Amino acid sequence: METGALEVITMRKIKYFASELSPKMDGMRVRVAGWATRIRDLGNIVFIRVRDREGEFQIICKKGEVDDSLLKLAKKITPASAIIAEGILRIAKNKEGFEIVPEKLYGNIADSPLPIDIFQETTELDKRIDYRTLDLRILKHNAIFRIKSIIANAFREYLLKNGFVEIHTPAIGLYVAEGGANVFEVKYFDKKAYLRQSPQIYKQLMTGALEKVFEVGPAFRAEPSYTIRHLTEFISLDVEMAWIRDIEDLLDLLEDILIHIFKRLDESGRKFFNILGVEPPKIPKKPFPVMSYREALMILNNEGVRLEGKDIPQTGEKVLWKFAKENYDSDFLFITDYPWEIRPFYAMKYEKIDNRLEYTPTKSMDLLYRGMEIVTGGQREHRYDVLKRQIIEKGLRPEAFGYYLDMFRFGMPPHGGFAIGLDRLTMMILNLSNLREAVLYPRDPNRLEP
Amino acid sequence: METGALEVITMRKIKYFASELSPKMDGMRVRVAGWATRIRDLGNIVFIRVRDREGEFQIICKKGEVDDSLLKLAKKITPASAIIAEGILRIAKNKEGFEIVPEKLYGNIADSPLPIDIFQETTELDKRIDYRTLDLRILKHNAIFRIKSIIANAFREYLLKNGFVEIHTPAIGLYVAEGGANVFEVKYFDKKAYLRQSPQIYKQLMTGALEKVFEVGPAFRAEPSYTIRHLTEFISLDVEMAWIRDIEDLLDLLEDILIHIFKRLDESGRKFFNILGVEPPKIPKKPFPVMSYREALMILNNEGVRLEGKDIPQTGEKVLWKFAKENYDSDFLFITDYPWEIRPFYAMKYEKIDNRLEYTPTKSMDLLYRGMEIVTGGQREHRYDVLKRQIIEKGLRPEAFGYYLDMFRFGMPPHGGFAIGLDRLTMMILNLSNLREAVLYPRDPNRLEP
Repeated sequence: METGALEVITMRKIKYFASELSPKMDGMRVRVAGWATRIRDLGNIVFIRVRDREGEFQIICKKGEVDDSLLKLAKKITPASAIIAEGILRIAKNKEGFEIVPEKLYGNIADSPLPIDIFQETTELDKRIDYRTLDLRILKHNAIFRIKSIIANAFREYLLKNGFVEIHTPAIGLYVAEGGANVFEVKYFDKKAYLRQSPQIYKQLMTGALEKVFEVGPAFRAEPSYTIRHLTEFISLDVEMAWIRDIEDLLDLLEDILIHIFKRLDESGRKFFNILGVEPPKIPKKPFPVMSYREALMILNNEGVRLEGKDIPQTGEKVLWKFAKENYDSDFLFITDYPWEIRPFYAMKYEKIDNRLEYTPTKSMDLLYRGMEIVTGGQREHRYDVLKRQIIEKGLRPEAFGYYLDMFRFGMPPHGGFAIGLDRLTMMILNLSNLREAVLYPRDPNRLEP
Repeated sequence: METGALEVITMRKIKYFASELSPKMDGMRVRVAGWATRIRDLGNIVFIRVRDREGEFQIICKKGEVDDSLLKLAKKITPASAIIAEGILRIAKNKEGFEIVPEKLYGNIADSPLPIDIFQETTELDKRIDYRTLDLRILKHNAIFRIKSIIANAFREYLLKNGFVEIHTPAIGLYVAEGGANVFEVKYFDKKAYLRQSPQIYKQLMTGALEKVFEVGPAFRAEPSYTIRHLTEFISLDVEMAWIRDIEDLLDLLEDILIHIFKRLDESGRKFFNILGVEPPKIPKKPFPVMSYREALMILNNEGVRLEGKDIPQTGEKVLWKFAKENYDSDFLFITDYPWEIRPFYAMKYEKIDNRLEYTPTKSMDLLYRGMEIVTGGQREHRYDVLKRQIIEKGLRPEAFGYYLDMFRFGMPPHGGFAIGLDRLTMMILNLSNLREAVLYPRDPNRLEP
């Protein structure tokens, strides 16, 4: 139900946020807006606490001081109602702080009862996601997405300052870059198409012209499993660079990007870490510790951790984190040289293979942060003949890679890159227990709405 | 075919771009890279012109001056081959400028003949897209995407500086916000899902908590038609803001965003406009001219332009541009108050309706730029009862909007926003004749690869 009207524009500023208001503005005319939390109706006087994304303030409607119609409206307001008030800010009489005496008041009155608790964190995550709008009026939950916005921007900022070009490549296509099983099919007119598992193929192709590129966008994996760290749709921060000499160049760039992100969080994110009651992470120092897959296996073996096939299990990642923490005081740990068997067809193999190894190492790397894989990347095979051979070796058909593969006949540069999982990075920086807490509207096998 | 090797890291800098090289660096050791264009083999001396994304330079391999193996390699190089050279930059002996004498040389030799012309713009667009990597080695084509990167960043930069939060909302979902016909279906495990036509529903929901939000991401329309200004996948720059008083607030914000984008293009884009031979657009001034749909119809009627149903046809948009140009010296023109019949269910209707009108006007707007619709937006209906009624009025089922509609029971603020078509804006700023020129890998009913 909507009451009141505010159609006439009388002020230049659309609204003052709670954080912009102060007793120093005593006597000033302001437009404020937010959502009612507590309403105290004392008969001839109604106090309305209003919360916006930046904080809280109070509106006071007192008989004689405001028009009777406003007092009447104020009495109808329920928790979670949207409120707009235009009026005078004044220092509160009987206490510190200030209050707003409205000359105009507007309310979009919320139904009662509310489906979730907007005062305490008692609601289970699933229901919070159903009503994300209400959920994010809790400043602690809101703060997660303020942090995420800072991370995404810091990522781009670093790359744009360092000669990278932002690209936008298609989400619908024919190529299945990361392997065949976990891909979503799209009905594309009378054809079959697929949602990208990554922008891998396109960012690679672009190193052949734009040289240094990045892309921020969604990626899709049709994983039927439900875990706290996987979703079927996620935001991938993708980077790809031509002319690299070695994966060292990639580690170097990734370190610089992450240091920049952590600096920006330190500068602009403190307020949100405080709201969340989370210690802001220390700005990491270069170089991050690095170990090869082989070294990682030795540590895991000592600790009695068994592999899942050739994959390091999640428990293993935690063990390695502990090792990095104890030995290098680092939350970050690079693992390099993964076996060809568990990397995609485009991963570059090492030329000289250590005969003692039972697998073919690739010029690849993952970055673990606090025991969670948040980045994966490596040098890509740029030689046409070798790439074609590797496609076949993986049991794929070269013809299925059409123009992508063909382009490698015309001077593709040595190149490599990586993808940072934005959602995971946000989750781990904030010590959240489920990836869904860091995603506004998560998608998993059971969830397609809201 | 790959020849030469450059595995040892001897330099800190991965490469110098052509634009960073100058005769002042005479005697300096550099690492350069790019693609061969012209190769002149004079027997004991080979000149290789190399182009990177920033310009050109020359490598000289002379018997006695370089190792014989390098001279041998140089002789194998074909146009479009990827070249890396580490060596000494020196002032050229017989002419102005400089040349690079390699100590190490690497080549990924391109096949001949090349599928497209990399020297002149003789290749038709379709084939250029097939071989985008080669195509973008032509600096004129490359420049389009440098401009696009500047536009996308300027958009975000303005909003982040003005209190907007970046959000990431799902591309796969159940809701069909913009009408039912042109939506792509996704096989989502054992369910049916859809690709978003816009992030409309999610950005609206987020005004109820984050207040001011924006999103940059793909949107999908299953339009079976082939035109020079439609694609099935495009990048949408979405903005949504709570507490607006009127669509005036939206026009105001949109003007500021565009002025900022044009300023940034003026500061950072001149080089690329020069390469393209395109006049950089003048920075527009506020306010942009505004006319209502009714006024637009009067002008179109005078000019003998017929509507397509209630839609203004493309020819009509050109007529209106001419009008704006002649009367206001503006490339921009706002058209407001479109009929309810041609806007989506969430458009807000005017309360007081002029009885002379044969349609119900909405608080909506489009922005035309040089006669092309590049932005669409408006105030959204935020009152639960009215919104539900409007869904029914459009022949849709309220139950199909589940949590979205339900959320409006709990204090949604008055809000509105708009979506800028990044591809179209780029196209129109650069006077390109086909939207596909401004999209790396366009998607239309006939094209799914590369």
